[in-house]
Amino acid sequence: MSRFQSERFSRLEAYVPGEQPRDRKYIKLNTNESPYPPSEAVLDAVRAAAGALNLYCDPTALRLRRAAAEVYGVGPDRILPVNGSDEILDFAFMAFCDRRTAVAYPETSYGFYSVLADLHGIEKREIPLKDGFSVDPRDYLGLHCTIVIANPNAPTGIALEPSGIEEILNANRDSVVIVDEAYVDFGARSVLPLTEKYDNLLVTRTFSKSHSLAGARLGFGIGDPALIADLTAVKDSTNPYNVNAMTQAAGIAAFEENGYYADNCRKVARTRDRTARALSALGFELTDSAANFLFVRHPKIPGGELYAKLRERGILVRHFSKPSIAEYNRITVGTPEQMETLLGALEDILSEHRAAGDAARYGR
Amino acid sequence: MSRFQSERFSRLEAYVPGEQPRDRKYIKLNTNESPYPPSEAVLDAVRAAAGALNLYCDPTALRLRRAAAEVYGVGPDRILPVNGSDEILDFAFMAFCDRRTAVAYPETSYGFYSVLADLHGIEKREIPLKDGFSVDPRDYLGLHCTIVIANPNAPTGIALEPSGIEEILNANRDSVVIVDEAYVDFGARSVLPLTEKYDNLLVTRTFSKSHSLAGARLGFGIGDPALIADLTAVKDSTNPYNVNAMTQAAGIAAFEENGYYADNCRKVARTRDRTARALSALGFELTDSAANFLFVRHPKIPGGELYAKLRERGILVRHFSKPSIAEYNRITVGTPEQMETLLGALEDILSEHRAAGDAARYGR
Repeated sequence: MSRFQSERFSRLEAYVPGEQPRDRKYIKLNTNESPYPPSEAVLDAVRAAAGALNLYCDPTALRLRRAAAEVYGVGPDRILPVNGSDEILDFAFMAFCDRRTAVAYPETSYGFYSVLADLHGIEKREIPLKDGFSVDPRDYLGLHCTIVIANPNAPTGIALEPSGIEEILNANRDSVVIVDEAYVDFGARSVLPLTEKYDNLLVTRTFSKSHSLAGARLGFGIGDPALIADLTAVKDSTNPYNVNAMTQAAGIAAFEENGYYADNCRKVARTRDRTARALSALGFELTDSAANFLFVRHPKIPGGELYAKLRERGILVRHFSKPSIAEYNRITVGTPEQMETLLGALEDILSEHRAAGDAARYGR
Repeated sequence: MSRFQSERFSRLEAYVPGEQPRDRKYIKLNTNESPYPPSEAVLDAVRAAAGALNLYCDPTALRLRRAAAEVYGVGPDRILPVNGSDEILDFAFMAFCDRRTAVAYPETSYGFYSVLADLHGIEKREIPLKDGFSVDPRDYLGLHCTIVIANPNAPTGIALEPSGIEEILNANRDSVVIVDEAYVDFGARSVLPLTEKYDNLLVTRTFSKSHSLAGARLGFGIGDPALIADLTAVKDSTNPYNVNAMTQAAGIAAFEENGYYADNCRKVARTRDRTARALSALGFELTDSAANFLFVRHPKIPGGELYAKLRERGILVRHFSKPSIAEYNRITVGTPEQMETLLGALEDILSEHRAAGDAARYGR
């Protein structure tokens, strides 16, 4: 910290992204990326865009908004493309929260919500989950503050039905309700159709998980044109050209080949469900994940130890030290081959653990 | 504006980027882009990066920082790459200004400074220019607030000597002084070497002008490691993966071929100086620009009219309605061919204007 830093940031705890170690080649199951590459059309589009990089990109991202409008089934004036969905969350916290308007979200959810609230000096209302890590819509009625719900939630993967979210929307007509659908394409039901009905609903999407574009940084805010206008004013006041030309081109190409990505999401969902059954058979306990990750614990092995033992074996998963979930690990669903390797490693770890337990018990 | 927008944004005036009209093909001399395309190595690097876009980019941009360190002659811990230099300005206003620490900058300068101050609720101290649009360092001594100096300044193109900036740095040891060197590569002298000497100096750079990457969005903050750590904390709290993988790759390739871009900058400077002489010969008055644009007015034709007449002829330049500079237009230096077309159009406009004047005078 420099001696010039504004006092309000003196205790700022920045978000810690999943590790990207370079000491060896890992099977990366820690940041919920797609295991499948972008389509050829995306590569061609990027290549074509690169030749004209000396010119600024379109600050209104009009072609990209039109392509998104086709797929999302809403008008282009209801869509704001951003540099990754973290950015739309940042803009929304700025536009719709302040010293008087707090933000509420599930106490266990995407860690970035808390970081953003602290950054902007916004009061946080962290609402505990129910047993089994579920979000109960009845805990979110009439809160008189901005609300953020990740659906499916992270890191649990548990999804709410649209009817539950509609209950929250109806009971908070004077507050913005942000539904973070980063993981919706892997099996949950989207509330996008509700954006026409509720002027207080902002849906956020990302191409980092379902559309193989984590490295390109592309997200969207979708909602009532008045909400989008507010967010666009913040965008134009921080970084008018926020989505670069290559990413705009990649996004358009990906929307045009949406079937390829939908197929990939179905493949990931099938791999997830097969892996979940195999993990259960090994004695793991799992939440009912509708996302591209599994949230698991083993009654015999502490979460931190499992994380470390997988890492030793070249497999990276995500472990959170937060006490309420410290027994768990979040495991991204990769290719079937990667999941085979994971299961093999877990079998090894479990039998080692049993052998060590036997040795201790029988004094061998 | 939605009914949910935070009250503090109710009068927010977002920055208006230079127009990008699509009604016809224009000679674009309005947003200070390079007229030369990125080098082949940049295209190859982007192509290679695109294949792995399903994975997140390196949030620490380590390879890019190392490449920048080679060219800028400072350590990688003194460099923060960002999504266009507007973003480093945003981060710096957040980190180093607040309700108690105002921001001072020349009253005529890059319009974004005022937008950012309003966005973050920071008090603005806009310091008038001297006659002839020059910045006098003596107006910036002991201000007890964050200071921003664009060098060369925009839209005037006038540069300060490093000694003038050093005077400001010395007289404001307890304040951060941001030197925005967006246009420095076209002939002004950089204060980068002073970043080792002054812990209160933050230099910002962009690849949008000199390095043919406006559409890729790449900027840098360079300064004392403690300043960079503060800015990195803000970055990690808003958008940890802010610079996408393709742009990181493009930036590395561009640094490795810095000679190509330095040659382009020299070409642009030569074209600028030739165009300036030709404009003087046509009766235009010009500031002494060290940037890749000219700031011009003609005593006979109002600035707004000249802008409109050039636009009719398919040439876009930038006109600002601010009263103190409304007689001027800012004209980006393009290729020699584009400048020939510009000069031809200006000759036409001037002779039309003379004919109209004669007609009015002699009643024809």
